[in-house]
Amino acid sequence: MRQAVLEFWFDFASTYSYPAAIRVRALADSAGVEVKFRPFLLGPIFKAEGWNTSPFNLYPAKGRNMWRDLERICADMSLPFRRPDPFPQNSLLAARVALAGLDEAWGMDFCVEVFRAEFGRGSPIDAAATIAGILSGLNIAAEPVLAAAQSDNNKARLRAQTEEAQRRGLFGAPTFVTADGELFWGNDRLERALLWAAQRRGA
Amino acid sequence: MRQAVLEFWFDFASTYSYPAAIRVRALADSAGVEVKFRPFLLGPIFKAEGWNTSPFNLYPAKGRNMWRDLERICADMSLPFRRPDPFPQNSLLAARVALAGLDEAWGMDFCVEVFRAEFGRGSPIDAAATIAGILSGLNIAAEPVLAAAQSDNNKARLRAQTEEAQRRGLFGAPTFVTADGELFWGNDRLERALLWAAQRRGA
Repeated sequence: MRQAVLEFWFDFASTYSYPAAIRVRALADSAGVEVKFRPFLLGPIFKAEGWNTSPFNLYPAKGRNMWRDLERICADMSLPFRRPDPFPQNSLLAARVALAGLDEAWGMDFCVEVFRAEFGRGSPIDAAATIAGILSGLNIAAEPVLAAAQSDNNKARLRAQTEEAQRRGLFGAPTFVTADGELFWGNDRLERALLWAAQRRGA
Repeated sequence: MRQAVLEFWFDFASTYSYPAAIRVRALADSAGVEVKFRPFLLGPIFKAEGWNTSPFNLYPAKGRNMWRDLERICADMSLPFRRPDPFPQNSLLAARVALAGLDEAWGMDFCVEVFRAEFGRGSPIDAAATIAGILSGLNIAAEPVLAAAQSDNNKARLRAQTEEAQRRGLFGAPTFVTADGELFWGNDRLERALLWAAQRRGA
């Protein structure tokens, strides 16, 4: 029987991607599903909808609800929560480093630590010092990683990843995609996505 | 100990209000919470956001995802599903009848049957014949109810109910509101809302 796979698409600026990133690995393990972290940028996708910032900023009632909802979710998970300022954070640097890191063993840990820094401690994730600090905490030498992340090749890979997200119909984050192309949008759809993936393993 | 109460705010045109309406009474019973059905109109609220139709029509990627997601939810609940045409349906008549009916014993059953007709069988809920058929199925004489629903007094009550929704920060449906004013938006937040209501009973 083949190992079932679930792709976890996220933008580091995305609020609901925080609890999703914290939850996804343990839940996938329990479901016998392999999870693939796929960072991308929502900016170009929002721009195509005519939005120049997060819809949570454009529609204040929706934004107010999201912050309160996220606060409740984090409290239920005993997860620290701080609202990033400004919101959304610029996630470009973190996404580039993550993409480089996901070829290595530390990639997923790095992603989770970025979310913890951003939404748990309120750290600015566009600051090289924040990213370097996270890498150091994982016993990774920051300088060569930051250099590799900013290489033309890696920048192009992130653009291609974002284009793939757009082509596959992603419009928000987190989004979970199964091997047979089923899309599940939202932290609250994670369990259903894992069940879908597990039921179709080897199909 | 006082009975905990949860308000269930919905628009008959709202897609996710369908599974919510089907689920809410049994779940509220199990949680020991009394549920109050509160129909309102999303139209004026969307208009205030600058939208002249459902955001699911305005943002096609989001709309595609919603239909697929709803299809999965209904399949998981063994609930028939048909996409209403046109979408959204005009929910004014159904909301007026519901508001009148919710003073009577048959109000909640009527609401559930409207959702079943609209999203389960694809019936036009703006047609008096559809509404009359639902009332007959509940052994209610349709004519006096339709007349009462269209009275100036009842029309004004629905406007007031919609204004209350707007004033309390509702921006979508379904929305669940607890006695202490906590808002939970979405069918997928129903369980959490009931827990919130139950934990604060008599508070």
